[in-house]
Amino acid sequence: MKKLFLILFLFLSVQTIHAQNRLERVEPLFWWTGMKNTNLQLMLHGKDLSGYTLKVNYPGVKLVKTHPVENPDYLFVDLDIQSEAKAGKFVINLEQKGKSSLKFTYELKNRDNAAGRIQGVTNKDFIYLLMPDRFSNGDPSNDVVKGMRETKLNRDSMYYRHGGDIQGVVNHLDYLKQLGVTTIWMTPEIENDMVNASYHGYAVTDHYRIDPRYGTNESYKNYVEKAHGKGLKVIKDIVHNHIGTGHWMYNSLPMKDWLNQWPEFTQTSYRDEPVMDPHTSLADRKKMLDGWFVSSMPDLNERNPFVQQYLIQNHIWWIEYAGIDGLRLDTYAYNEPEFMADWAKRLQAEFPTLSIFGETLVNSVPAQAFFTQGNTVNRGFDTHLPGITDNVLKASLFEALNGKSGWVDGVFRLYNTISQDFLYQDADKNVIYFDNHDMSRFYSVIGEDYNKYKSGIALLLTLRGIPQMYYGTEILMKNYSDPDGLVRSDFPGGWKGDKENKFTPAGRTTQEQDAWTYVSKLANYRKNNPALQTGKMMQFVPEDGMYVYFRYADGNKDAKDVMVILNADSTAKTLNTKRFSERLVNKTILKDVINNTEFKLDQPIAVPAKTTLVLELN
Amino acid sequence: MKKLFLILFLFLSVQTIHAQNRLERVEPLFWWTGMKNTNLQLMLHGKDLSGYTLKVNYPGVKLVKTHPVENPDYLFVDLDIQSEAKAGKFVINLEQKGKSSLKFTYELKNRDNAAGRIQGVTNKDFIYLLMPDRFSNGDPSNDVVKGMRETKLNRDSMYYRHGGDIQGVVNHLDYLKQLGVTTIWMTPEIENDMVNASYHGYAVTDHYRIDPRYGTNESYKNYVEKAHGKGLKVIKDIVHNHIGTGHWMYNSLPMKDWLNQWPEFTQTSYRDEPVMDPHTSLADRKKMLDGWFVSSMPDLNERNPFVQQYLIQNHIWWIEYAGIDGLRLDTYAYNEPEFMADWAKRLQAEFPTLSIFGETLVNSVPAQAFFTQGNTVNRGFDTHLPGITDNVLKASLFEALNGKSGWVDGVFRLYNTISQDFLYQDADKNVIYFDNHDMSRFYSVIGEDYNKYKSGIALLLTLRGIPQMYYGTEILMKNYSDPDGLVRSDFPGGWKGDKENKFTPAGRTTQEQDAWTYVSKLANYRKNNPALQTGKMMQFVPEDGMYVYFRYADGNKDAKDVMVILNADSTAKTLNTKRFSERLVNKTILKDVINNTEFKLDQPIAVPAKTTLVLELN
Repeated sequence: MKKLFLILFLFLSVQTIHAQNRLERVEPLFWWTGMKNTNLQLMLHGKDLSGYTLKVNYPGVKLVKTHPVENPDYLFVDLDIQSEAKAGKFVINLEQKGKSSLKFTYELKNRDNAAGRIQGVTNKDFIYLLMPDRFSNGDPSNDVVKGMRETKLNRDSMYYRHGGDIQGVVNHLDYLKQLGVTTIWMTPEIENDMVNASYHGYAVTDHYRIDPRYGTNESYKNYVEKAHGKGLKVIKDIVHNHIGTGHWMYNSLPMKDWLNQWPEFTQTSYRDEPVMDPHTSLADRKKMLDGWFVSSMPDLNERNPFVQQYLIQNHIWWIEYAGIDGLRLDTYAYNEPEFMADWAKRLQAEFPTLSIFGETLVNSVPAQAFFTQGNTVNRGFDTHLPGITDNVLKASLFEALNGKSGWVDGVFRLYNTISQDFLYQDADKNVIYFDNHDMSRFYSVIGEDYNKYKSGIALLLTLRGIPQMYYGTEILMKNYSDPDGLVRSDFPGGWKGDKENKFTPAGRTTQEQDAWTYVSKLANYRKNNPALQTGKMMQFVPEDGMYVYFRYADGNKDAKDVMVILNADSTAKTLNTKRFSERLVNKTILKDVINNTEFKLDQPIAVPAKTTLVLELN
Repeated sequence: MKKLFLILFLFLSVQTIHAQNRLERVEPLFWWTGMKNTNLQLMLHGKDLSGYTLKVNYPGVKLVKTHPVENPDYLFVDLDIQSEAKAGKFVINLEQKGKSSLKFTYELKNRDNAAGRIQGVTNKDFIYLLMPDRFSNGDPSNDVVKGMRETKLNRDSMYYRHGGDIQGVVNHLDYLKQLGVTTIWMTPEIENDMVNASYHGYAVTDHYRIDPRYGTNESYKNYVEKAHGKGLKVIKDIVHNHIGTGHWMYNSLPMKDWLNQWPEFTQTSYRDEPVMDPHTSLADRKKMLDGWFVSSMPDLNERNPFVQQYLIQNHIWWIEYAGIDGLRLDTYAYNEPEFMADWAKRLQAEFPTLSIFGETLVNSVPAQAFFTQGNTVNRGFDTHLPGITDNVLKASLFEALNGKSGWVDGVFRLYNTISQDFLYQDADKNVIYFDNHDMSRFYSVIGEDYNKYKSGIALLLTLRGIPQMYYGTEILMKNYSDPDGLVRSDFPGGWKGDKENKFTPAGRTTQEQDAWTYVSKLANYRKNNPALQTGKMMQFVPEDGMYVYFRYADGNKDAKDVMVILNADSTAKTLNTKRFSERLVNKTILKDVINNTEFKLDQPIAVPAKTTLVLELN
């Protein structure tokens, strides 16, 4: 069944011509003229290809080299797509003495330079992270796809597919826009033809195919275009480090060292230290980088130049194809650092406006800074990675909200973490957040304390960096990630016939509606005040349990300075503004951006318990 | 009384000649020919000096400028000591219309380039920190010095002077040498003519005078020479940031901004963040840097060029005068960063072999790294400070010894801290330690657990960096620093008539003797094995509660590789050596350097509970 489907798919996309069907796959599916890097390495897969010689006859396309590899069913072909090459289709012939010849048609397209594509995601944005299987089911016809390994749909179990898809997201673009979101980040929508937990997304089984349970390559491209049309941006979540054991190559690899092979199954240590530690042992480094993430996710050998080229081209392909604005790199720290730096340079050369950030679930600012670009902390090795997921800030935010105060605790920890920004080339590129699909939800971690919720949302939307919120936070969705499926519940109302529909005010409780409005108000305020987006930050040493900072954009007429006051204590406080005078010159009135209450600067400000005030300076 | 003494002192050292005695002080007391920087700024102090014009007539000495300042009792004089100037004494005349002239004799000496001076203190060394008032009383005649403000000697109170002195240290140089110490660091022995707690040492009252309760300038110089004669080095502890309110200048400053003045008493915030925080407010930075340390320690204005020159010359003076090997800079983070960088460059230019490290009681590796030299983390600003006191490693060592283990706890915290060494230009210059005169003593913090004691000492003497031990640790002295005087007890036997004398084996309990021998054995082993001094370090991810690292110096014939195994758990463990194979090539036998027990590499190693094994590889 699977094979039939595959052949059909390839017929459509690669237009395999050969009668005996011995050439089954050519990747990338097509390519473009006018790329900065004119090299293109095709991967041909079929039966016994290694003895063939290729012939290409198309102006501007030069055959540079063919690489037979260990597995005769693969042939790698280096082409040079020179600047004079025009878009079009052409036939490539494969010949071998004593064998019948093969051929296939390959296509070069013109690059799409339309406005609104590949915009980049910056601190002007507000990212909404969702899992496509769990957000909304827009197309029930693709819930179960014949020929794929996981056949069961079961919304009662967190381990099975629930049926959410790309169309479900497309249906809610207006919802997201109204909420004040500017950017959508979906967990991977790439094919995960795995037997178990295929909704998860991080076990890639075909690098060139959107999972048919989510849609098609075309519907993905269409989703990006629709989002752009509404002024929303799109982040694609990609995985360099590993594939799924269900990957079409897995049982017939091009060469043994396509994967990092071990005498017996060896899991990564999950420890980032050996990557940066000047005293590391090679054994520890190898285990971290080459150990498998889990047994169902084999580790790609990123020192293999064919693997390198395969990944680089695949990612370029998706960006150019769909016009994506940013990439989130899964399990960044587990990848071969030198390759990732090369990868970033290659991508940035083709797409200067593309944004990139890496998942770095590490526990110190030095570790986070190590992974970001700039020759500052890593002595001669530059990752060329602009942004990271700011896990240390996350822990500090919870520490601040959860109250206790000490020399390095509570609000001081948050203050101290931000003070270490000098380690980054640009901390404004850090993605800041409270939770994601792998973590206990924000509302649970703060003990479902609604005051802390609002206080935290206010910090998220006013601190430096690119704020990211996990789907459902706006309606107070909760749970602990033990097991992780618990934090991946369906968004109520995303499925036809759902008892509750929290996409609409009518479906929300009073408090949920209040939370939704709070997020929306602040997010939309942020969207219209450059001080909170690209403005500088000035923070003050906390005193009396209160942490005060400013966002300001001197010289920007559209910006209004903002003062943020966090009182993390469970008692109300009074703040005298005198010590903040260097940011209060010529100001008289402070306006609470949520409820428009006004404070006069010459009088102390009353700050309720567990509250963050966001005050516009006028 | 004080004044009489002062005049006598100045007569001897500056040889004031003027009859009416209106010129009371000239600093520096004398100077040298052949300095890299040929500028010398004299500070003249007396009655009404500002109107005088100076005349100098000495080959190679050029009068550049005189600076009258706010206070007419001071005159600053810039001289250029050109390369042709020869050592000798010469008269400088002060003339003023309608006033009688003044004069004084000034001396230029030849620099002392004798071998064994200014050796530098490196990771080859083992530093012993002591408080001179509390170590040993070698000269009872200077216990109370008439004319000084604190007149009481009371060994029963931790707040009063106890009578220890430089001669007491000189008397115990052999003791220290036998213990395996290579370097002595005394808390400041500079004059502290304060009414209260004058034993403390950090409230300087005369920058050019050893406190007479400790000895004289000459006896200090003599102590350094004696130490050098025995192969020991000397660190001087100096204070840039503040003076004591008993300083001779304090009630008659050269100019108002000699100190950082505040409308009302303002204490420093003690927070280092504003010094490095790119988002800091100027108000916070000013409070940290310009706020007074305590009310009895006024903050010097290090932006004032006269203050800058005064401090630089004073420190150069002491080094050249006494041949000191290294400087420990008190309260480093509280000083004006730009000045401290200039200061370091000036000192390093005159004394390339001098070692310098700063006291940085901060709470993160980034903060520590910020203060060390190398344009790595601090973006364009280089402190030029080679070393710091590694407070973060200290906390990590306790964390490791105190047992509990978790992803970022216990031995993992120690491992993680060391992995962040990539932030430093050279972590080998960090001074590593468990305690000092301001902190609870090592033995108390580990709950007087003797196994942990030995385990900790083994880490201290085998990890990277420059190990420092606080006096009395070798005989299990204990106490918590609440109040701090409790950790400043007298060394038993340091005073004639002491009931116990723990400087000798006979005076020690069995366990104290065992501890002493343990420290001595390891320290002397370290002294003779370059692998533990200057060797590289390789550490492994902890497993099963055990942290393993190696010190090795490939290519150094005198070095023997060392494997260190810390089992921080309270249960005995067995260690299989297979995963450490990259450091075990061609090795067969591991020898415990304490008791010579041998382990065979092809067999698992039994590691008792709460134990650090130090194994020489053969």
